[in-house]
Amino acid sequence: MKYPFSDRVLSLKPSAIREIFKYASDPSVISLSAGNPAPEAFPVREIAEISAKILAGHPVEALQYGVTEGYAPLREYMAQYLKERHGIGRGFDGILITSGAQQVMDLAAKSLLNEGDTVLCEEPSFIGSLNTFRSYRAHLRGIPMEPDGMDMDALERALDEERDVKFIYTIPNFQNPTGITMSAEKRRRMYALAKRHRVLILEDNPYGDLRFAGEPVPAVKSLDEDGLVVYAGTFSKVIAPGLRVGYAVAPRELLQKMVVCKQGEDVHTNLWAQMVCYEMMAHTDFDAHLARLRGVYRKKAKVATDALDRCLPPEVTYLPIQGGLFFWCTLPQGADMPEFCRQAIRDRKVCVVPGNAFLPDEAAPCRSFRINYTTPSNEKLTRGIELLGGLARDFLR
Amino acid sequence: MKYPFSDRVLSLKPSAIREIFKYASDPSVISLSAGNPAPEAFPVREIAEISAKILAGHPVEALQYGVTEGYAPLREYMAQYLKERHGIGRGFDGILITSGAQQVMDLAAKSLLNEGDTVLCEEPSFIGSLNTFRSYRAHLRGIPMEPDGMDMDALERALDEERDVKFIYTIPNFQNPTGITMSAEKRRRMYALAKRHRVLILEDNPYGDLRFAGEPVPAVKSLDEDGLVVYAGTFSKVIAPGLRVGYAVAPRELLQKMVVCKQGEDVHTNLWAQMVCYEMMAHTDFDAHLARLRGVYRKKAKVATDALDRCLPPEVTYLPIQGGLFFWCTLPQGADMPEFCRQAIRDRKVCVVPGNAFLPDEAAPCRSFRINYTTPSNEKLTRGIELLGGLARDFLR
Repeated sequence: MKYPFSDRVLSLKPSAIREIFKYASDPSVISLSAGNPAPEAFPVREIAEISAKILAGHPVEALQYGVTEGYAPLREYMAQYLKERHGIGRGFDGILITSGAQQVMDLAAKSLLNEGDTVLCEEPSFIGSLNTFRSYRAHLRGIPMEPDGMDMDALERALDEERDVKFIYTIPNFQNPTGITMSAEKRRRMYALAKRHRVLILEDNPYGDLRFAGEPVPAVKSLDEDGLVVYAGTFSKVIAPGLRVGYAVAPRELLQKMVVCKQGEDVHTNLWAQMVCYEMMAHTDFDAHLARLRGVYRKKAKVATDALDRCLPPEVTYLPIQGGLFFWCTLPQGADMPEFCRQAIRDRKVCVVPGNAFLPDEAAPCRSFRINYTTPSNEKLTRGIELLGGLARDFLR
Repeated sequence: MKYPFSDRVLSLKPSAIREIFKYASDPSVISLSAGNPAPEAFPVREIAEISAKILAGHPVEALQYGVTEGYAPLREYMAQYLKERHGIGRGFDGILITSGAQQVMDLAAKSLLNEGDTVLCEEPSFIGSLNTFRSYRAHLRGIPMEPDGMDMDALERALDEERDVKFIYTIPNFQNPTGITMSAEKRRRMYALAKRHRVLILEDNPYGDLRFAGEPVPAVKSLDEDGLVVYAGTFSKVIAPGLRVGYAVAPRELLQKMVVCKQGEDVHTNLWAQMVCYEMMAHTDFDAHLARLRGVYRKKAKVATDALDRCLPPEVTYLPIQGGLFFWCTLPQGADMPEFCRQAIRDRKVCVVPGNAFLPDEAAPCRSFRINYTTPSNEKLTRGIELLGGLARDFLR
């Protein structure tokens, strides 16, 4: 049988990183390629206690069908929390609980994109979101990254040149894959540009709470007086990703369409997980949990930084980070990065993600690769970076 | 701000049943309009025990990111179980764990449908699936229902007449909303027609295990020697819907595309819930649980049938059922069914779903309405049917 696939799935080519991941299941390989939060930061005891309480006290509420919009106490608590803590949410906004933040990208794309519409995104950017936009047959145009975020002149040019731009996609804090945080000034300029050109902003903030140094920068959504920003948050990095609970804060008119789309996708998000998130937020010392979690990340990032400084030859650079999950490393001019990543896994048994996986056009030239420091143990992390350093010395000789 | 919505969400009109559901939150209203399984059948004690065991023994496995395909022990167990019990799954098939069976409809539609492609569906059929197909801008053509399932002559005519038919959508057991089960003969003829016309079949089977009388009919998927059938199953009706765990059994080539689509929607399904389903299936007496559950449904259906026979005037008919969640009632020729449903909720405080909500064309004439008997208590169920009977006598006078 030749299956009559839709044009949209036929246009989703197998990713360049698939080939590399084939090796990653080999247990002798050290994986620095994941995007997983540090498991030692999961509040396991609290979740077990809360879960037992829910299943003893309100089992039918946790197990029966719920409403698509999400568990009402969680929605109300988060609306209040985000407003007080981050200035997020105006009178025209609502909140929708989703199955991870990934679903916010999907529902926003589904509600907004016609085939051929343009999405402006950071270059590089998160592959998962780019693939979601591709699945609605969007045209992706990348805006180059600078050390303080998107190049705003390039963004302005793109807004002038492109037709049918529906939204700008940004991960403003500790961006995946670069770790870059957008400056407050650039956030204001991006918002002003979006307003002038009447396009929306999709602000994806999975890592904002994982700041272990420096000062937080206000969310783009906190500037939103005009109903232009869809804000995506998640409990994946501050509680646990296996729960698959995220949320969108967006103008209600737009959120209503996202609710209709969600109804047709998964009806609603797992209720037990929504109740766990609510109880964690409302009835535990969540600030103390966040402080402990930031301590874990600070220490682990120090282990990685020490190893990077000690092991990488000076021609290989990396961007310093103040939070998030990733280091972005760059080989010197002329180096064949894909070949470096292939040799890393094949010959040195260490797996990193080649940077071109994160480009709107995967075939474009790229000399960078991404390292995750939060998933491996400290020993494997150090050993993995030592192996990369050894390879780099040989490779660049 | 005028939001630049996609054509697909603009084409999803607010449903005719929304207006009626506005009243359903009034606590004095008796709701016979839900699609919820009976909460007294939920295995609450088992789930609480299993959950405690998981969170004590394998917390990181339950809380960390998992693979998109699903929790491997659950996939392997279900592949074996479905093969042994129902003859479902050949060498070319794989299994994908989804966020409820609704996501199977979404992923199949996303992988197969281009704008304007045709889906042949039972008329009436489940509104949630129809809306999913609409969200990919499919053309829906309804095939009339007979007491033993789809009219196969009408199906054959439709296959001859329509261009670009991608699949036939069927709920063969205790269909939503009619409660009808397709005969074995019609299943064979449908399969042969699909094979001859080289179209796929999307077999949605949420209710098959809820049979409390009569003999099971083999799944369409059990006939599938040619890789034509996508089978959708769910734990929502046999364990609990709040878990949001379903599954697809389909040819691997097609499943791979569905996996890519799922990756962009929610990455993977809540892991704790997948592990609960696995433990329930593999390490409890699941057959005993199913037997107990069928006992609950049998008794509850008897309460409903007794009340329907006692209270409805003879001009109002209903289809007898051997399982599932619904009764399909029909007013006599000339009766204004939408007005009857409006008066039911407004004047008698009892809520049912007007049948036109389940039609490919909601504006088509319809004299039927759907009653759910599993969600209300026996007292409310009886009282609700008494109120409907009283209204019917006045209404038809």
